[in-house]
Amino acid sequence: MPELRKDPIIGRWVIISTERGKRPSDFGVTMEKKGCKLCPFCPGNESATPPEIIAFRPNGSRADRPGWTLRVISNKFPALKIEGDLNREGHGMFDKMNGVGAHEVIIESPDHSSDFGDFGDKTAQDVIWAYRMRIIDLKKDPRFRYIMVFKNYGEAAGASLEHAHSQLIATPIVPKRVTEELEGSQKYYQFKERCIFCDIIRQEMSDGERVISSNDNFVALEPFAPRMPFETWILPTKHFSTLEDIPEKVIPDLASILRETLKRLAVSLNNAPYNYILHTRPVENEGKEYFHFHIEIMPKLTKVAGFEWGTGFYINPTAPEDAAKYLREVNLSAVPESLVKNQVH
Amino acid sequence: MPELRKDPIIGRWVIISTERGKRPSDFGVTMEKKGCKLCPFCPGNESATPPEIIAFRPNGSRADRPGWTLRVISNKFPALKIEGDLNREGHGMFDKMNGVGAHEVIIESPDHSSDFGDFGDKTAQDVIWAYRMRIIDLKKDPRFRYIMVFKNYGEAAGASLEHAHSQLIATPIVPKRVTEELEGSQKYYQFKERCIFCDIIRQEMSDGERVISSNDNFVALEPFAPRMPFETWILPTKHFSTLEDIPEKVIPDLASILRETLKRLAVSLNNAPYNYILHTRPVENEGKEYFHFHIEIMPKLTKVAGFEWGTGFYINPTAPEDAAKYLREVNLSAVPESLVKNQVH
Repeated sequence: MPELRKDPIIGRWVIISTERGKRPSDFGVTMEKKGCKLCPFCPGNESATPPEIIAFRPNGSRADRPGWTLRVISNKFPALKIEGDLNREGHGMFDKMNGVGAHEVIIESPDHSSDFGDFGDKTAQDVIWAYRMRIIDLKKDPRFRYIMVFKNYGEAAGASLEHAHSQLIATPIVPKRVTEELEGSQKYYQFKERCIFCDIIRQEMSDGERVISSNDNFVALEPFAPRMPFETWILPTKHFSTLEDIPEKVIPDLASILRETLKRLAVSLNNAPYNYILHTRPVENEGKEYFHFHIEIMPKLTKVAGFEWGTGFYINPTAPEDAAKYLREVNLSAVPESLVKNQVH
Repeated sequence: MPELRKDPIIGRWVIISTERGKRPSDFGVTMEKKGCKLCPFCPGNESATPPEIIAFRPNGSRADRPGWTLRVISNKFPALKIEGDLNREGHGMFDKMNGVGAHEVIIESPDHSSDFGDFGDKTAQDVIWAYRMRIIDLKKDPRFRYIMVFKNYGEAAGASLEHAHSQLIATPIVPKRVTEELEGSQKYYQFKERCIFCDIIRQEMSDGERVISSNDNFVALEPFAPRMPFETWILPTKHFSTLEDIPEKVIPDLASILRETLKRLAVSLNNAPYNYILHTRPVENEGKEYFHFHIEIMPKLTKVAGFEWGTGFYINPTAPEDAAKYLREVNLSAVPESLVKNQVH
């Protein structure tokens, strides 16, 4: 019997097809790396990108020259423009404003062919540090109400370049999905005076069947009502509502569980394309007590998203308990099959 | 300057990139028809599908045999099961129930290679009649709270078979996107005592720049804050909250504007994959005054949906005013380029 399950935070029901449950190998994902051909994110090609905003340069090399280990630049084709005022205006019953915002790219490593799941400790941690630094800096701009960090990996997930990178968009509005999470978790807080995410973490860690792994400060799990097969969340086990609030000393734990989880997904799903999104509260203090920072990872395995994002009604062919079991059992020293076939240098 | 625009119904902001505005030919959609090879939806193969629920058989032929012009069957691989009770239950803080529901397939025509945009008058109208008949029948089942009719056209839009068909899912819950529309339009109604969709139609028909076409009873338009390029809505110009409430005598006008709009999209976008979804109020009378029946058509042109459905934050590279202009100017007697190349028989 298929099951209808309700997401406790925003109240979305999803259909979980537990009977014809799809295993990782059923998705037939193919992922080819093309290798570096005039990649603007590779060392030596710095002039092909906008000037760097920040960069980590352990050898003290000059800006916009090789020698960096991580680089943050403006997006060459920004969805929003950094200059200008908001100029809110109405047209009859419609509302609009100027598309003011920041759109930055975090080039995670100088190495063209590696990705987060295979980074060394320092590279993985530096990516998190770069997210934090940019968020803290952009929060000073009074025009911005939300700062969203995300990563598209693979063409099917929307990445136009294959060199490891993430993106950051600072917006004068709070995205709808975030508003829903804020409202849902606020309702629960008003009713129980507890953070709903903290309660979920307690129940999940006690149940265990949807937990993939945990360390002293973070847990990786499959949510109870996932929209997509192998949707995976990473949450701090203590209550923090933003990445900036998380103590500096636990950043290595976040980098390490994110890397390990991406590696588990890559091995299990043959290096499938994915998106991850940092879910944080808005720039203002709204949600400090009741919103819980987390990262949502969405492997791109199914094609039916068109209908599903149109209705908000998701049919998920893999139960999260099964997905968690597959991911727990992954051999972390394995190499994804598609990477063995398409070795790139 | 890009523009931020707010959907007046559910309050979602989208980014409209008016500067680097994408034209229809920029999307590079390819759509190949493979032709009929043992298609279970073709006449003569009726035994390959579950038995028919209803069929239109002008020559009085026997059930589950050739001679039909339209056939409705149960989905062979249903997302929900028709038998059983709901059995709502909780598990700690989580809620679930049995996946009880109906999942049907409307085989729109016996002809394997034609689609809605090229149907004759009778075939197009019969599809709408079949939707109505099945909705009216399924509403009698007290377990169902919502009946959703939709069509996936093309593999990239989630269609697993290319023979023209739509689907219907009856569910014991109201999908999240519908709930959002209901809540948004109710708020407006409480404030203004008018239907928000009726107000939008009045403003759009007076402005004209986002209207594609209209007839005596329906209008096809590009919404002010579309999520995707060429997102298109069809609405009755008078207030009706469901397909069943629309007077029988205006069904030909609905069939004709839907066919014409799909044809405009096919010619303009080289026969691109699409989803359409009938947006109707729930089975109960909730929303009768303030919800407005409409059809949302979503061409599948961009790949970035992964990030966007994760955040609810959409970046649309084609302004709806431009899309409406392209669609108004379409030569309706043209054949989409990809169909000329891939003639199937």
